[in-house]
Amino acid sequence: MRNRFDQQLELLNEQLTRMGELCEVAIGKATTALKEGSMEQAQKVIEADEEIDQAETDIERLCLKLLLQQQPVARDLRQISAALKMITDMERIGDQASDIAEIIITEEKSEAQDIPKIIKMSEAAGKMVRDSVNAYVEKDLELSRKVIQDDDVVDELFEEVKTTLIGFIAENKGAQGVEAIDLIMVAKYLERIADHATNIAEWVEFSITGIHNASVV
Amino acid sequence: MRNRFDQQLELLNEQLTRMGELCEVAIGKATTALKEGSMEQAQKVIEADEEIDQAETDIERLCLKLLLQQQPVARDLRQISAALKMITDMERIGDQASDIAEIIITEEKSEAQDIPKIIKMSEAAGKMVRDSVNAYVEKDLELSRKVIQDDDVVDELFEEVKTTLIGFIAENKGAQGVEAIDLIMVAKYLERIADHATNIAEWVEFSITGIHNASVV
Repeated sequence: MRNRFDQQLELLNEQLTRMGELCEVAIGKATTALKEGSMEQAQKVIEADEEIDQAETDIERLCLKLLLQQQPVARDLRQISAALKMITDMERIGDQASDIAEIIITEEKSEAQDIPKIIKMSEAAGKMVRDSVNAYVEKDLELSRKVIQDDDVVDELFEEVKTTLIGFIAENKGAQGVEAIDLIMVAKYLERIADHATNIAEWVEFSITGIHNASVV
Repeated sequence: MRNRFDQQLELLNEQLTRMGELCEVAIGKATTALKEGSMEQAQKVIEADEEIDQAETDIERLCLKLLLQQQPVARDLRQISAALKMITDMERIGDQASDIAEIIITEEKSEAQDIPKIIKMSEAAGKMVRDSVNAYVEKDLELSRKVIQDDDVVDELFEEVKTTLIGFIAENKGAQGVEAIDLIMVAKYLERIADHATNIAEWVEFSITGIHNASVV
């Protein structure tokens, strides 16, 4: 029985890793779409979001099966509850990548104001998602804490992007102002993605230590 | 057998109406929180979002049970598939109300730039959610089409809010500029809520007519 349980936990880890990869790909493609003004890439993000939603459903089902059939306790129980929580955050990450793609699809190609910094935000957020899921699979407390610290970096980048774009709007109202607003939204969604990666990292801490800090909404 | 199926469809309608009400309350409370700078109201939105997530799970379970046990066809099948789609949009509405609340919690009380128009957006979006769910329950094609038209009103209000706030930023950079950006985000989330209500209305059309227009992402 125990052996079968371990096998299923292994399967859970694989599915979570796969879902994390899908999120990272969605974030990456959203950024490429922004950089290149590519509708095709943006459309792919929206398709990836559907795959992410499906992964959430599959993992949820597996977790419920494990809870009901195996009645795990202590650390095993925490591990499965954490997984159930983490997939909600990953699903939101997919939604937000999709929101970014939608802005790119509906708007004109931007004048690339502050785009390098937004791309930096996107890379940092993508890495946070990967690290948080790896921390879960590897039971790596140090890595999960690094993710929580990295959130400050993304928050700072967001503040910088906002300040630059506010200055830009102040100097160029009208059409270019609207573009700058779109970029601020993209940055806002990336900042939210990093918040969700932080939530995931906090669930990893819980699954290892049994202690959970109040998560970011 | 048929009788039992009708009873369960009735239960499905009740649960959908309830979930729609929760969404409307969340949107309303988010607006009150904005108007009054009330943390308490903002906190309630986040709690409502959890109830909305639970409602989604409950309705999903009921729909799957109905699909598997009753093997419905034609209009009954469309009605249940539409419900399954609608709850995804309602869940996103809850997320977005929660995102609005989070902006209110983390930021300073705003100088009320263009808040009346944002409140108008919020009322319109809330009404769209209510109308779309009512259109489903009452099988009211005319009402669902009205919702789709109302989306244009919210989109226009959003453009107006953006233009005003861009003008405001152009004249007051710095701290007040940041506040204006927060308000633009709130307006953006409301515009997305209206998009989701439009998606719901399109699923209502599908459940009645069997034809589905490409939905807004």
